[in-house]
Amino acid sequence: MDLQSLSSRYQPELDRALISMVGNSSLPMYHMMRYHMGWVDASGEPRQKVGGKRLRPGLCLLACESVGGEWRKALPAAAALELLHNFTLVHDDIEDGDRERQGVPTVWHVWGEAQGINTGDAMHVLARLALLSLNGNGVPPEKVLRAARMLDETCLRLCEGQHLDISYEGREDVGIEEYITMIEGKTAALFACSLELGAILGADDGAVVEGLGRFGRNLGLAFQVQDDALGIWGEAKVTGKSAASDILKKKKTFPVIHALRNAEEGLRRELLRIYAQENVRMSDIADVLHILESVDARRITTEAAERYIQQALFELGRTNLSSEARNDLTSLAESLMGRQY
Amino acid sequence: MDLQSLSSRYQPELDRALISMVGNSSLPMYHMMRYHMGWVDASGEPRQKVGGKRLRPGLCLLACESVGGEWRKALPAAAALELLHNFTLVHDDIEDGDRERQGVPTVWHVWGEAQGINTGDAMHVLARLALLSLNGNGVPPEKVLRAARMLDETCLRLCEGQHLDISYEGREDVGIEEYITMIEGKTAALFACSLELGAILGADDGAVVEGLGRFGRNLGLAFQVQDDALGIWGEAKVTGKSAASDILKKKKTFPVIHALRNAEEGLRRELLRIYAQENVRMSDIADVLHILESVDARRITTEAAERYIQQALFELGRTNLSSEARNDLTSLAESLMGRQY
Repeated sequence: MDLQSLSSRYQPELDRALISMVGNSSLPMYHMMRYHMGWVDASGEPRQKVGGKRLRPGLCLLACESVGGEWRKALPAAAALELLHNFTLVHDDIEDGDRERQGVPTVWHVWGEAQGINTGDAMHVLARLALLSLNGNGVPPEKVLRAARMLDETCLRLCEGQHLDISYEGREDVGIEEYITMIEGKTAALFACSLELGAILGADDGAVVEGLGRFGRNLGLAFQVQDDALGIWGEAKVTGKSAASDILKKKKTFPVIHALRNAEEGLRRELLRIYAQENVRMSDIADVLHILESVDARRITTEAAERYIQQALFELGRTNLSSEARNDLTSLAESLMGRQY
Repeated sequence: MDLQSLSSRYQPELDRALISMVGNSSLPMYHMMRYHMGWVDASGEPRQKVGGKRLRPGLCLLACESVGGEWRKALPAAAALELLHNFTLVHDDIEDGDRERQGVPTVWHVWGEAQGINTGDAMHVLARLALLSLNGNGVPPEKVLRAARMLDETCLRLCEGQHLDISYEGREDVGIEEYITMIEGKTAALFACSLELGAILGADDGAVVEGLGRFGRNLGLAFQVQDDALGIWGEAKVTGKSAASDILKKKKTFPVIHALRNAEEGLRRELLRIYAQENVRMSDIADVLHILESVDARRITTEAAERYIQQALFELGRTNLSSEARNDLTSLAESLMGRQY
C-alpha cells in the first residue's frame, strides 16, 4: 500500500461523493470551489489532472477497512475531511499571500480576496453538511453527533495551529517545541481525526480508535516535518513547488528554526537579515542553504521525521489490528516518508 | 416588547452561554474573539459597553417561549446563532475593508488580515460546537442533527448572499430583484433560522415552525432594507456609524440601486462616476443625496421595508400562536422599524 494505490483504491467513489457535495449550482461561488478542487479551470473547462492527493480521506477509509468496517459507509466522513482540508487551504493561501498552488493560480488570486474568504467559508459549511449526511448512510444519530463534534474540535485545533503559525512570522526566537505544538494543531490533528473517524465508523472499539489516533498524530507530525524538508530540498517537478520555495516565502519551518537556534551567531544574524527583507532574492537562497548546512539541518530534519514515523509504527503495533491491516498502514506510512525527493 | 427589553430579558444567561463557549484560553486567538464580542478592549481590559444587539439569539429564545417552550433549553442554539452572525461580521469586515465597527477598530485592523480570517474561522467552529451542545441540554440526538443541518444550510445561504453582494460591487445594472435575492441570503435566512430553531426546540409543531420562519424571513428583509436607509439617512450617534456611511463606502444598497434604475440619465451617470472613484469624497455626499432625492429614494426605501413588515405580520397572524405571543412578536417587529432614526 503506497500513496498512489491508496488514492486510486477509493478515488472514483470518493470523487463522486465530493462532486455531489459541491453540487452543480451555477452560482460562481461553486465554480470557485470546483476550480480549487482541480476539476475545472478558471473558465469552467474540465481539467485533466485531478486535484490533490486525497490523503486524509484515504486514511479515513483505510482505517475503516482496517477495523473490519465497510468503507463505503464512511464516505461522507471522508468527503468531509477533504472539504475541511481544502477550505483551510483556500484561506491559508490568502493568509500567506500565496498566488499559486500546484502550479495553478489560487482562488483569491483569480477572484480576489473577498470572494476567496467567502468561498472558503462556504466550503467549511459543505464539510459539515457532508459529515451530517452520514445519518442518511445508516449511521445512528448519536454516532453522527460524536463524529460532528470530533470534526469541529479538530477544526478548532487547526485554527489554533494556524494562529501560532501566523504569530511566529514576526518572532526570531521560536523554539522547536513551540513549532511542534503549532504543527500538532495545523497538521497532525486532522491526520489523527481522519483515522479516528474511520475507526469509529468501521467498528468503534475505543482502544483501537485511540491507538489509530496516536498513529495518525505521529504520522501527521512526520508528514509535516518531512514536508518542511521538501519545501527546501525537494525537487520542483515532484513537489509541484519551486525549488527552495519555503525560503522564498520566508517560512519558519523546522530546518530554519533549527538553524536559528543552533547556527553560530554571525550566520544566525545573516539568516535573520535575509528573512527580515520584504522579499527574499534568488541570490539569498544559496546563503540560506549554506547556513542550514552549517548546522546539519537537512539530516536533523529528516531524522526528526523518521522518529515520528517510528513512534507512529510503535503505536500501530500496540493495537490489536489484523496483521494485514497493520501491514497496509505500515507500508503507507513508509511510502509517505519516501515521497517526492 | 421592544428591542431593548428583548435584549435585557435574556441577556445575563445568554452572555454566560456565549462566554462559556469562547472559553478562557490564553491563546491570543480567543482574546481576539472576546475583543470582537465587545467584552474586552485590545489590551485585554474589560469594556463597559457590551457588544451588539444580540437580536438573532433574542428572536430564537422569544420564538421558543412563544410556542410554549422553556427558553433556557434553547440557549445553546441562541449562542450558536450569535457566534455564527459574529463570525460572518469578522470576515465581512475584511471583505469590505472596513476598519471600524461600532466606533471600534475591527479585528483585522488591529491584528492583520491573516489573524482576522483565522479567528473568524474559529468562531465559525464555536458556533457549531455551541449548537451541538444542545445534546447535553436534554435535546434528543435526532433533533440536534436537524438543528445542526438547519444552521449549516442557513450559513450556506449567507455565503451565497455574500457572494452576490461582492459580485454586485463591480456591476452597474443590478436590479431590485437581484438585490432582494442577495439580502434573502445575507440577512433574511439567519432571521428565519433563528425563529425556526427556537420554535423547533420549544414545541416542534411543523406548521408553526414554518409560519415563524416566514415571519422571520420577512422581518429580516424589512430589517435589511431599513438598515440601508439608516446607512444613508440615519443619525451617526444612534447608528454607531458615520452619517451617510454607506455612501462613503460606495455600498450599492436599496436606495442606490433604486436611483441607478430610476434617476434621469445625467444624474445616473453622475452617481456612477462618483461610485467609480477610488474614494468617495465628503463633497460627493451632497450630490449623491440630491440624486437619491430626485427619485424619492428615502420614501421608496422606507415603504419597501414597511411592506415586508406588513407581510411578516400577516404570516404571524396565520399561525395559531397565543395572542400574547403574537403581541410580543408584533411589537418587537414594530420596534425594529422604529429604531435609530
